[in-house]
Amino acid sequence: MRISGLSRVTGVPVATIKYYLREGLLFPGRLTSSTQALYDEAHTARLRLIRALLGPAGLSITQVRDVLRIIDDPGPDMFDLLGRVQCATMLPSQRPDTAAAEELIGRTGWHIEPDSPEMHRLAAALDGLAAAGFVPPEGMLERYAAGLHQLASAEIAHIPTESAEAAVRYTVLGTLLIEPVLLALRRLAQQDAARRRFGAPTTG
Amino acid sequence: MRISGLSRVTGVPVATIKYYLREGLLFPGRLTSSTQALYDEAHTARLRLIRALLGPAGLSITQVRDVLRIIDDPGPDMFDLLGRVQCATMLPSQRPDTAAAEELIGRTGWHIEPDSPEMHRLAAALDGLAAAGFVPPEGMLERYAAGLHQLASAEIAHIPTESAEAAVRYTVLGTLLIEPVLLALRRLAQQDAARRRFGAPTTG
Repeated sequence: MRISGLSRVTGVPVATIKYYLREGLLFPGRLTSSTQALYDEAHTARLRLIRALLGPAGLSITQVRDVLRIIDDPGPDMFDLLGRVQCATMLPSQRPDTAAAEELIGRTGWHIEPDSPEMHRLAAALDGLAAAGFVPPEGMLERYAAGLHQLASAEIAHIPTESAEAAVRYTVLGTLLIEPVLLALRRLAQQDAARRRFGAPTTG
Repeated sequence: MRISGLSRVTGVPVATIKYYLREGLLFPGRLTSSTQALYDEAHTARLRLIRALLGPAGLSITQVRDVLRIIDDPGPDMFDLLGRVQCATMLPSQRPDTAAAEELIGRTGWHIEPDSPEMHRLAAALDGLAAAGFVPPEGMLERYAAGLHQLASAEIAHIPTESAEAAVRYTVLGTLLIEPVLLALRRLAQQDAARRRFGAPTTG
């Protein structure tokens, strides 16, 4: 199909598709003349992936480019892959003081690379709590860690190993696209828990 | 202290403090002349809160203003308060198809307002999975829901009721500032779980 057809099928405006082509996120179509190219299902799937990463997962164009590069060339090492995905989608930030984060992770008994970018992310998040004067209830951070470790273990156990491509897709998309699902589910769970504790206006 | 002192204590540049004053996020100091004002600990605390909401929690200036308005005037109804905080910090988005979200929430047995903005948020997140062709492992979404409901119940159980101000601070900050903590902990838990499943390069 032509670029107009690709736009119709995916709902992405032609100008936006051209922007993704220029930015190297979408691979070029097959040229049929100097001004026309043909696109196929591979372009449709790629375009949907780009939109999901930019939209619900909230990545920048640069981060999407890095993630797509990993998907296109994953390398052989699954453990290393997870680290590269996490690096590619870190927010740029100063290096915060990681003492509180290391102390928390020390109490979990997890085995974490000390200079992991995710430790900086956790440190920045804990800094935010401290800066706002918010003290979580006693033991709550440990509960979060334990609950998320159960979920993460199930996620990692499900990484398919029959093909590198399937493993990469699962790891990259399962890390990024599940984040907004988790945050939405937490807020809905809070609504249900708050209704049980405080009641709610009767509707009718 | 003068604005320069407030800047020194909080590490926020004077120009930025003036911007927050103009935007109405920070309340004015006590005027001592037509060009000078004095600031106190209340300003320091407010400024730290503003920075935490803008930084780790990732809100926009407009969202911070809405959240501060709720903190300053919470109203009497705790259940309603949670909804207002959630509304104030929703991303603007089109209304996605909520069928998949409603089906998932139906299986959890949670009692949720059908037109809750968080249902739209969940629907958008599930749309993202579908658009990228990512199918979570069988039963995994239900596991996320169950795990997060346990954590949310503990959070809601800890809402302090001795003063409205304490309840509001806990609800607002506990909802927003914990989100980046959860995402960082999940990624660290994945690292630990991946190391257990796949091993890791030996270091040393």
